Parts: sequence; structure tokens; C-alpha cells
Amino acid sequence: MMIGCSGFVSINLRELIDMKSIMIIADGIGGRPTDLDGKTCLQVAETPEIDDLLARRGTGGLMDPIDNGVRPGSDTAHLSLFGYDPYACYTGRGVFEAAGIGMDLTENDVCFRTNFATIDSSGNIADRRAGRISEGQDELEEALAGLKSEKFPEVEVRFKRSTEHRGALCLRGPELGGNVSPTDPHELDIPIPESSGQDKESEKTASVLNEVTRQAREILGDHPLNKRREEEGKLPANAILSRGSAKYPEIQSVEKKYEVTSSVIAAGALYIGVARVAGMEFKPVEGATGTVDSNILNKAKKAVSELENGKDMVFVHFKGADNASHDHDPEAKVKYIEKVDDTIGWLKKNLDWEGTHLSFAGDHSTPIQYGDHVADPVPAIIAGPNVRRDELKSFDEFSCMGGGLGRFSGNLLPMTLSYSNKLPKFGA
Amino acid sequence: MMIGCSGFVSINLRELIDMKSIMIIADGIGGRPTDLDGKTCLQVAETPEIDDLLARRGTGGLMDPIDNGVRPGSDTAHLSLFGYDPYACYTGRGVFEAAGIGMDLTENDVCFRTNFATIDSSGNIADRRAGRISEGQDELEEALAGLKSEKFPEVEVRFKRSTEHRGALCLRGPELGGNVSPTDPHELDIPIPESSGQDKESEKTASVLNEVTRQAREILGDHPLNKRREEEGKLPANAILSRGSAKYPEIQSVEKKYEVTSSVIAAGALYIGVARVAGMEFKPVEGATGTVDSNILNKAKKAVSELENGKDMVFVHFKGADNASHDHDPEAKVKYIEKVDDTIGWLKKNLDWEGTHLSFAGDHSTPIQYGDHVADPVPAIIAGPNVRRDELKSFDEFSCMGGGLGRFSGNLLPMTLSYSNKLPKFGA
Repeated sequence: MMIGCSGFVSINLRELIDMKSIMIIADGIGGRPTDLDGKTCLQVAETPEIDDLLARRGTGGLMDPIDNGVRPGSDTAHLSLFGYDPYACYTGRGVFEAAGIGMDLTENDVCFRTNFATIDSSGNIADRRAGRISEGQDELEEALAGLKSEKFPEVEVRFKRSTEHRGALCLRGPELGGNVSPTDPHELDIPIPESSGQDKESEKTASVLNEVTRQAREILGDHPLNKRREEEGKLPANAILSRGSAKYPEIQSVEKKYEVTSSVIAAGALYIGVARVAGMEFKPVEGATGTVDSNILNKAKKAVSELENGKDMVFVHFKGADNASHDHDPEAKVKYIEKVDDTIGWLKKNLDWEGTHLSFAGDHSTPIQYGDHVADPVPAIIAGPNVRRDELKSFDEFSCMGGGLGRFSGNLLPMTLSYSNKLPKFGA
Repeated sequence: MMIGCSGFVSINLRELIDMKSIMIIADGIGGRPTDLDGKTCLQVAETPEIDDLLARRGTGGLMDPIDNGVRPGSDTAHLSLFGYDPYACYTGRGVFEAAGIGMDLTENDVCFRTNFATIDSSGNIADRRAGRISEGQDELEEALAGLKSEKFPEVEVRFKRSTEHRGALCLRGPELGGNVSPTDPHELDIPIPESSGQDKESEKTASVLNEVTRQAREILGDHPLNKRREEEGKLPANAILSRGSAKYPEIQSVEKKYEVTSSVIAAGALYIGVARVAGMEFKPVEGATGTVDSNILNKAKKAVSELENGKDMVFVHFKGADNASHDHDPEAKVKYIEKVDDTIGWLKKNLDWEGTHLSFAGDHSTPIQYGDHVADPVPAIIAGPNVRRDELKSFDEFSCMGGGLGRFSGNLLPMTLSYSNKLPKFGA
């Protein structure tokens, strides 16, 4: 190829100074061949906008969210996509659920996911979700503000409700371990089990958890809301059950790790929580529900405004494809993928493509038939001015096999940041 | 694309309940271009059954048994294929050799591979294999049953013979380290070296090993079998030399790690040993020899019966291609690969393909010219109802580059289990 001098004069130095990154994760978007002509939902769905983005601006590949042969959880997968080693830093789900519903945490916190539950007159668990309680939880939260440990008064006890029966419990104090057994046995017709700790510090945590669990029963048992519920024939929310014990993990924030400012735009508490623990600022969006009905266009709009208002990076999470997969509902999954495609179409028109790199992938495959996460890799693309564009023209689990990104493991966020020339060097 | 409801009605839920897995490793099957028209032995061999399995039911790729740029041993490669990190858990070969010849081990064992050897009248090593002793080893094993440490009587000493001059020595007791130097110098005409330990616990092990080595010389030196051997002009087996010191590794069994029941079908002690340490049940097979003459069809038959009798997973090891490679014998390697192909043909007819995933690969490449393991990746396929089939139609070191599995590192067993929906999730 002839290269005239004119070829060199127009190099756009903009890329050196202020490029932006947006990483969009469509949860559970990958799958396996279905009965739909032997195709995956992603193959069946019409995705002209994603395909065009890939063809015109992108490069694709297959990503093992954590590693080949590893079946990812949602929390461990996101840690890995953000560039953390979940084998080194993952402590459990509780801390992400607590962070995800807005609790502020420090390295002295041990957190649990909780359920409001119903204990019957003989002291056994009658319902793990208190009849999926849907109103009055604020009153119960307020009543539980007085929880405290008599035995270890230096431990601060905090409880916060979430949606329906869900909530989180955080214990903050010195020398609290995170390796304690749950008080939620996932069984009915037995009493609430005593928690125990695997080491000395965790024994202290278990002791506080057992105290607090008993206190909560007393407080909730006498609560006027539960009297009303019983009068209305509803199951009382007279106990809290705790699980997913997790000590706050040793995680360097993305701001320190990558020297970027960042936001998270998501609806599910877990995803918000993982991102908040990684130091991203949560930005709520109207109509974002974490279900197939979520207003994901509003999420895309918020992402663009966050970048325009100065953030270096935005992580956006779309949950619906995973919900449809867990429900074994291929029609809903196909429809949701097409809604995601519309949203990508909006982003294509509204992102500053000279100064932005966008990555788009699943956080794991969730096949329709199996209805849960599997280890199969997920298709991934990165689009923007600095990528080495390949020949791919459609985005699915088969086509991406031949893409320029090959097969790779996790680290999608730092990959995206590097294309935007925003990744610190390892070594000198 | 139109989606009719009819597309959704026949989802096969069988996969949710009882899928089986079989992982077949053809040792050393990968290679490099040879003088046979510049092709690898795998390219030269006619493998219609493997090719057809790949084309009709499978997806392929190139696998780095441990990692790219790592030249695998047989033991470390198998650990990695099973989903363990050999950098974290590998302690040495002795423990696998001991487990492979049927010794039952605990975490308090330190094991060695041993040779019967010949010491001459001046006390020097005259032959490291006692003239490849081929009879009477049972008598010698019996005589060595009395081995014990005077200095550390709490240490239990066990010796077991294997084929020809081979055997294993296990020391069981508290505070025994595994980092000791061998008493087998791999040299002749020098005395047996004293073993030494790299740390305090290993010094204890070395001290016991030195005691036991001296005792064995006394016991074997006076043994009637050796008098007979000398009368017959044979070299006496009047000493044991030990090498491959290994403390029992910290390995979670596949039953705990993957929640599956499993069997190993192999002939070589090392492969049986690695699998037994990983918790698989050894199933002997008539005619299985670990050489090119082995009855590998019987191995396939045993594998099918193990699955039919309730095992979730079977690991099958075929050794011959590696032997032929170490012998620099391309014809023998081609012939053995074709025998493997016949066996795959039998499996194709006799496996329940609606409910089984089969993976097939080498554990490393062993090029004919070099005659030893190299770091080149090996071709690998996974076949069964849940894989994303690719366009591959032939199985060799070149064609598999373009397959749907791409290039990946180890973990072939958990990958196979995930296709069979039998892999536990990491995280939540």
C-alpha cells in the first residue's frame, strides 16, 4: 500500500486526552442451541443494531467470564469482568446485597442477606418469606433500629429492608470474622438454627448474629403490624433469617486501580452492590426495574449523560435476559434481546464515537433449558475508534468464535479502558 | 424471524436430571510435522470415527494442558485437566506413583518412587535397575515389611513393589516434610548419597529415609533371592534408591469439588495415582497394559458399564501414543492412533448420546523427533447434546485451531461436567 505523507497529518490526537468507556453487560445473554431450529435465543433474535455496530466499529470474541471450565455466579463474574481476581477477593454475597440497597460499608463490616420470615406458635419456620410481605416493611425496619449486642456492645448492628421480604444485616466492629453458618436453613418446620463460626473471629460474629436473631423475634413478635397481618389472615413477619455471610472484601476501588471516575447504572441490588464495593457511584434511573419490563432506554440515556458530565467510565447492567432464561422462557428472552438491540441502536446515534469505546457482553451463559448459569463462554464485542476491527457481522455464540478477540477470560473493563488509553501500566 | 409457538413445546428436560460425562485422554497424541509428507502423526492416521464424532456432535479447539508456554509433566497436566491448579497443589511425583500401585494414603504420608538397584562390593551403585529384575520382587517386598525408624519410631514405613525394578516407599507420621533430596543420584559408580531436608520437617523425613535406605541394604544384601541371582550371573537387587519425594497434596476430591461420583480406567500407575488422589475409584480392566498393545476396547467397555452402573463421570487414559513418541516411532504412533479411532467408533455406537458428553484430547504434545513432552497445545474436542457445534470435520493439530472452543488452558473435566449440567457454581 502506498503511504503518502498526507496519510500521517490527520492523526487525531483527541484519543490521547479524553476518551470515555462504557461497558454494558446483558446478564445471561449467552445460551445453548434450543429447539428453535437448533439455534440459540441470541441467534433467533433480530439484532440489526448490534450486528451493525460490530461490523462497522467493532471486534468480537468469546469470553469466559472467570475462566474456562468455571461456572460463574453473578457476583464472581462481575468481579472478574471488572478486572479483580474473585479467587483472591470474593468473600460472599452478603456484602454486595447490603451495598446494593444503599448501606455504606467499611472494612470492619460483616454483612448478610436477610428474609423476613414467619415462625409458627411452636417456634418452627412456617414461611421463609413471611407470605412475600409487600407492605409495612418500613415500620419493621424502624422497629429493628434498636438491635444491639449485649455481649459485644462495641459491635454496631444495622438492618435495612429491601424489596418484599428481602433485606440486609450488617455487623460492624473489631475482630469480626465472615465465616459463619447461616440462620436461614432453607427448610421449613424446624426452629431457626444457631449460627456458628469457623474461627475465633467468626465465632464472635456468630454470637452477635444469634443474639440479634433472638432480639428480632421479640421485637417483631410484639409488633402491631404483625397483629394486623394476623387479623387479616396474612402470615406475620416475626423473624429475620440471615444467609450469605461476607466480610467486606479487600478490593482496591476502580478509581485507585484504573485512575478513572465511574458510575454504575443498574437495578438489581447485587449488581449495584458489586459495583459500589468496587467504588463506582450508583446513579438511579426512572423505570429501571431489573426485570424484562425495565426501561433500559432510560439507562442508556443516563449513561450518556454521565459520560457527558465528566465520568470516565460507566458500567450499565441489563438484567432481563437472565430472568427469562431462569424462567425457561425463550420467547421472553428473544424479545428482551431485541429490546436491548433497540437500546444499542439509540446509543449508536447518541454516543460520541470519536472519543468512546463501548464493550458489550454477557456476564455468563444461561441456557433456556437448564435455566441457570453454565460455564459456556459468552459472546463479547468491543467497539470504538482504537479497536482492530475484524470481519464479524453478527453477534452470537457461534459467529463470535471467529472474531478478532479470540477466546479470553474476564477483564473486559480494563480491556475497554485500555482501548480508551485509560489503563495504568503494570510494571515500568 | 418468525417464531411460532410450536418451536417451544419440545424442550428436552432430560438434560436437567442425569447427564453423564466421559473424559478420554490419549497421552502424547499431539505432535509436530514429521518426515511423513510434513504431516503430524495425527494428520497421517486415518481417523474417520473421531472426525465424524467431531463433525456430527462436537466442537473442537486447541488446549494448553496447563498454560501456554508451560511444558507439562504427565502428573501436572492431568491435575490441570481435572481442574486443579498444579502450581498450588503439586508436591511431586512420588505420591501419585504410590497411590497408583494401590497404596492407601493420608495427609500424613510422604512418598517416593523407588528402584531396586545393585550396589557393588566397594559400595558403589553398579546398576540403577538391578538388571531390570523381573521375578522374585514379592519376596523382597515381604522382607522389607520390617523396615522401621529407630530414631523416630512414631513414623510408619511402608514399601510396595510395582513392575520390574519399580516400587514406592511411604513414610507416615507427624511433622514429616516433603522437600528432601533423592537417594537416587541418576549416576553410577558412586555410593548412595545421603538425603537431606530443606526445612526442619523435611530433615526429619530425610533422616528416616537414610535409616531405611541403610536397613534395606542390610536386609536385601543377606536375602537368599540375591544369593540365587548372583549364582545365576544376575545382578543382585541389594538396595533401594528413592526419588520423587512428595508430601500428600492438599487436594479436594472431585466428589467434593464437583459433587460427582467417578471412576478412573487406566493402566499406567501414574495416571491411576493422580486420579485416585483426586478421589476417583480405580477400575481395573483385563488386557489393559499401558503400552501400544493394550486392550483399549475393554477400557471403553468398562467406561460404558461404569456410567450405566451409576457413575456420573469416568476418566479413561490411553497411553500408547506417548510410548511410541518417546520411542521416536511414527509408524507405531500412527497405528496406535488408528486403534484409538476404532475404540471411539465403538463408543459412538454404545454411548447414550442423548445423555452423555464426551471429551477427547491429549495431555500434552510429544513430537516423534524430540521424543519428550513439549509446550505445543493439543487438539481437543467435546461432543454431546449441549455443545455449540462448529464446522470442524477433522481432528488434528492444525484443523482444531479454527474450532469453536478456540484456544484454552486445562480444565477439560469441569468444562465437560458443565455441558452435562453437573458443575457447581463459584459464587452466587
